[in-house]
Amino acid sequence: MTKRVYNFNPGPSTLPLDVLKKVQADLLNFENTGMSIMEISHRSPEYDKVHNDAIALTKELMGLSDSYKVLFVGGGASTQFAYIPMNFLHKGKVGAYVDTGTWSAKAIKEAKILGKEVHLAGSSKDDDYTFIPKSEDINFPKNTAYLHITTNNTIKGTQYHFVPDTGQVPLIADMSSDILSHQIDFSKFSMIYAGAQKNLGPSGVTMIVIKENMLDKIEDEIPTMIDYRTHASKNSLFNTPPTLPIYIVKLVLEWIKDQGGLSVVETINRAKKDVIYGLIDDNPEYFRGPVRKDSRSWMNVVFRLPSEELEQKLVSEAKKAGFIGLKGHRSVGGIRVSLYNAMTLEGAEKVAEFIMNFRKNN
Amino acid sequence: MTKRVYNFNPGPSTLPLDVLKKVQADLLNFENTGMSIMEISHRSPEYDKVHNDAIALTKELMGLSDSYKVLFVGGGASTQFAYIPMNFLHKGKVGAYVDTGTWSAKAIKEAKILGKEVHLAGSSKDDDYTFIPKSEDINFPKNTAYLHITTNNTIKGTQYHFVPDTGQVPLIADMSSDILSHQIDFSKFSMIYAGAQKNLGPSGVTMIVIKENMLDKIEDEIPTMIDYRTHASKNSLFNTPPTLPIYIVKLVLEWIKDQGGLSVVETINRAKKDVIYGLIDDNPEYFRGPVRKDSRSWMNVVFRLPSEELEQKLVSEAKKAGFIGLKGHRSVGGIRVSLYNAMTLEGAEKVAEFIMNFRKNN
Repeated sequence: MTKRVYNFNPGPSTLPLDVLKKVQADLLNFENTGMSIMEISHRSPEYDKVHNDAIALTKELMGLSDSYKVLFVGGGASTQFAYIPMNFLHKGKVGAYVDTGTWSAKAIKEAKILGKEVHLAGSSKDDDYTFIPKSEDINFPKNTAYLHITTNNTIKGTQYHFVPDTGQVPLIADMSSDILSHQIDFSKFSMIYAGAQKNLGPSGVTMIVIKENMLDKIEDEIPTMIDYRTHASKNSLFNTPPTLPIYIVKLVLEWIKDQGGLSVVETINRAKKDVIYGLIDDNPEYFRGPVRKDSRSWMNVVFRLPSEELEQKLVSEAKKAGFIGLKGHRSVGGIRVSLYNAMTLEGAEKVAEFIMNFRKNN
Repeated sequence: MTKRVYNFNPGPSTLPLDVLKKVQADLLNFENTGMSIMEISHRSPEYDKVHNDAIALTKELMGLSDSYKVLFVGGGASTQFAYIPMNFLHKGKVGAYVDTGTWSAKAIKEAKILGKEVHLAGSSKDDDYTFIPKSEDINFPKNTAYLHITTNNTIKGTQYHFVPDTGQVPLIADMSSDILSHQIDFSKFSMIYAGAQKNLGPSGVTMIVIKENMLDKIEDEIPTMIDYRTHASKNSLFNTPPTLPIYIVKLVLEWIKDQGGLSVVETINRAKKDVIYGLIDDNPEYFRGPVRKDSRSWMNVVFRLPSEELEQKLVSEAKKAGFIGLKGHRSVGGIRVSLYNAMTLEGAEKVAEFIMNFRKNN
């Protein structure tokens, strides 16, 4: 059997080994049903427990009350880019967006395709998305239906380290790439959504956490599966949900809880990113981190080497040494070290050691 | 270890044991990558092969040329009920639907929510959906954009045993519950869609088979993830697809091919349904099959016993004996024996034997 590699893929990404082992062990016979989790009804008591445990664990880890609903849907976060304006952007209302890179820009694009009114509340585009706009630089008009932010930007390697104060205006966040990676006041958000394939589980399910009063803001009759009220009122069981991905998400949530919850996860994630950023900061003559220090992502550390040739060589030699997925996004190049929850501190230290050795030899 | 049960669940439903064993064996280390299939990038060569193999196998099993695209998306077939009119129902055009039960009615409802013009091309509603309208009873106006049918109706237990001749009008079919279960001229369809969780794999992925010329009929600018052109032009890799469910679908498609393809699968499915319908027909004083013989589903055999008490007793005793999922849909009651591809002939024979013994004792 091949040894497990250190997987720095930006998503789908590494998952906790204990979770994978549990999925494997129970794959043919879930909870003594004589069936796989994939084969049992989404309306069975056995699946129901999985489903509701995943919801309860999410609320527990986020410290949220019953005024929030947790939904599980398909289609990926990209689908939500369109569903959000379809649900909330009524005539006379404006959708305010902070543009911090590819994913924000895609969210803005979908609102515009739908003919909705969009307000650019802040942007770092002119500086090649190398920072997150400051809270005081985020502005929006009175008739704003929501402010939308992308809390972590996988491609440019930036992350919000504050929660914008929006007053009475609902704050909506795409947290696909940093959900449950650190402590944060989740109750400041009216809606959070995240594709599972970074910090939560396999691809194929999107988690939506939505404040109940947001459901009252949906005025129009829109298609049933697009309407958040459908999934909220039916506990995400209006149709057959992606049961296998949700089951694995539940196991990942349990794994987070077993670690000690978000405070412990945050401590580990802080140590991981410090190892890699330390490397960059200690060797400025060799490594160049384009991101402003106050906006650095803990999840995706991006940096450049003195030449593209060296970058390619590093990625290639790393792969041979068992460090996978270090290539920067095709749109920006360079190196990207993704440090999602399931990456261990040992993994971060080992790859840092590898990179330092590379630096010495090259 | 608990013995594997005979699983007659209507969906999610039984999967081939060989497929589950393969998923289990390779779960921690896919193709010697040192990673799970869930952890590898959707843009890696390893996943790419899985993805493209699934597409090629679908076309091969369906006997379709390169004028068709095979797409994999999330959200379930219910989501397609809205996406189809959003893509194809332009001003001045009519969506024609044959209403054969719950799923057809839901598809019609979504087109109406969108304010689209709907034509009822045929219906068996007045006879409690106990049959499929004949081809000559299906009619639609000249400005019809498409005729939509539901080829198998899981709740009422009916199935099309012919393909409606629509001439130049595109034929669109929801095949969620009978896709790849028998031989059929798939080239008569302009679009086929199916949630995976009956004949194809786990829930969480929807297969769409679409004729390329349908893509030219999409006129409006609609949200990116709703637009079939997005998924067709990006080979369903515009965003992260549900990679784990697609991988399992690929294994199921290989299993179908290894069995000998659709001709062999059809032979087995015919034998399975004959066993159960034979039971009903041979004991008309005890079992009552509400469905017209020419419209009987091979996938979902529904019937009644002399009383609801006996029905409950049968379901309960069957469960104890290891036959799961025989309860009819909550909206109709009675007994339902679902015989999707992965149910073996042995399973059908064993449950028939059990039901006959029940009949003798009750």
